[in-house]
Amino acid sequence: MTEHVVKFYDLSPEVTSMLTKAGAKVTAAADLLPADYASVTVMFGWDASLGNAIIDTSNSQLRWIQSTSAGVDYFPKDKLAALGVTVTNASGVHAEPIAQSVFGDMLYFTRGLNTHVQNTQTHTWNNQGNNMRVLSEFKVLIFGTGHIGAELAQNLQALHVHVTGINHSGRAVAGFDQVYPLAEYQTAVADADIIVNILPGTEETRDFYNAEFFSHVADAFLFINVGRGFSVTNAELIQAVAAKKVRYVALDVANPEPLPADNPLWDIPEVLITSHTTGFVDDYTARLLKIVAANLPSYLADGTFVRNVVDLNKGY
Amino acid sequence: MTEHVVKFYDLSPEVTSMLTKAGAKVTAAADLLPADYASVTVMFGWDASLGNAIIDTSNSQLRWIQSTSAGVDYFPKDKLAALGVTVTNASGVHAEPIAQSVFGDMLYFTRGLNTHVQNTQTHTWNNQGNNMRVLSEFKVLIFGTGHIGAELAQNLQALHVHVTGINHSGRAVAGFDQVYPLAEYQTAVADADIIVNILPGTEETRDFYNAEFFSHVADAFLFINVGRGFSVTNAELIQAVAAKKVRYVALDVANPEPLPADNPLWDIPEVLITSHTTGFVDDYTARLLKIVAANLPSYLADGTFVRNVVDLNKGY
Repeated sequence: MTEHVVKFYDLSPEVTSMLTKAGAKVTAAADLLPADYASVTVMFGWDASLGNAIIDTSNSQLRWIQSTSAGVDYFPKDKLAALGVTVTNASGVHAEPIAQSVFGDMLYFTRGLNTHVQNTQTHTWNNQGNNMRVLSEFKVLIFGTGHIGAELAQNLQALHVHVTGINHSGRAVAGFDQVYPLAEYQTAVADADIIVNILPGTEETRDFYNAEFFSHVADAFLFINVGRGFSVTNAELIQAVAAKKVRYVALDVANPEPLPADNPLWDIPEVLITSHTTGFVDDYTARLLKIVAANLPSYLADGTFVRNVVDLNKGY
Repeated sequence: MTEHVVKFYDLSPEVTSMLTKAGAKVTAAADLLPADYASVTVMFGWDASLGNAIIDTSNSQLRWIQSTSAGVDYFPKDKLAALGVTVTNASGVHAEPIAQSVFGDMLYFTRGLNTHVQNTQTHTWNNQGNNMRVLSEFKVLIFGTGHIGAELAQNLQALHVHVTGINHSGRAVAGFDQVYPLAEYQTAVADADIIVNILPGTEETRDFYNAEFFSHVADAFLFINVGRGFSVTNAELIQAVAAKKVRYVALDVANPEPLPADNPLWDIPEVLITSHTTGFVDDYTARLLKIVAANLPSYLADGTFVRNVVDLNKGY
């Protein structure tokens, strides 16, 4: 079978060379004709309209989609599973930039930058330095111990910060001082000063951060969401801030996205919103293409993959 | 001789107990009577008016001043040297908070928080993420390899950042990939993406960051000053920003302090001013008193000191 790759971004010389040697046809997504939908075997990137059209074509030959994101909650997972299409994600590409953004969110609030930004705008020299903290005073709790969580945990440990993780089984992961199973998160939350959500968006995590969750929070300095917006019940997060259970909030993801301009979250002085950008990095595509290059040889040889394969039932 | 300690802050039980056992008299600065100025042997803290009055008293018995700051440029160093007074500084107390503030400054700009703060204020969901960077892309150059510089360098190395240091001799220091002597700073500057000043305020560092300095900067992402404000020539820094030799600036110290509200630095969008607060931490006095407790036994025994002694000629 001749491979037909639809690409949504420019490929690296390494990937192009592999495809050329295999005799693959490569078409830019914008140039793909409906008559050729059925012949597409690989999609490097995804667009709901084009993607669904390809899937819905009778006799679709689609076998592999390389997602540009780590989360794949927006893919038609049931349909793809039924068709036997493998989805590989971008997990790992985001670890360094997201971990550094989360780190930046923490230092923004612990080192009083939130106040200094306002003082700079108003030309106010204010060296009262209220509430200046160092991270080693805090216990950080990270929901999600995958690439991003582990990178963040290791960054924090270098600053002598105590880091607790949460995953399904409670299995130990390098970088974490302690890991609890998700079913026992309540104990860890009661003791946490900074809570970070990096869990994938699944039915299990929908509205996970709700009034019940915040009832277990004793006195948190900061809540950060870099997972999925729908994991948080906005009104109940706002109540937790009003009740001073959570002092500051940094949201990279929101519910919904884009967050409407009249959403009350924008107007809470303790909330910083970063508009789903924490995974961004200048050389993003180059990093993504390293995953593609790792998988291409085995895919071309026998249709198998060596890394980043998504379990379409679990959703991550 | 009976020790007479003047304190500007509450002492710890440990320090109080040492002084009580030694039969020392302790007076709060606000309660000190002029008739007792000559009897003062130790000052825990400093105030220019009271301090100079004590020094200028005939037959002053003053032997030791514990500064609350790391920098001692504001002390009458020549007079203190002539009187044989030892000044111990707070070097080390600031290392963790200042290093974390500098780290926060870096991530504030590399992770686009400067843009997101504005977007949050204007209720704008903007996920264009221009210029999002990771620190491992950058070479960081730190002027000053003391406690603060070394702490910062070690923090950065944990994120796989290349760190170069500058000190007088060019001697190697843990945490730095490379160290240049101050006399050869030009080579290091030409290659630096982020430049951090932590040098003490001395005549040697006055106006060090001037047009001549910036002429060696090729294309720096960020310039941070947490040393002393008078080390920077404001107008020439502003020119370097205008010429895009330096893209962003974070100033904890300014020239002069407080920085007047009409100083043009406040209005440059690329400049963040943190009003000399980066050393602040909630338990500052407790940290300072650990230095006092380390020096007290030998001071009380034979007038010697084990740490944090300032060379009054060098000024640090």
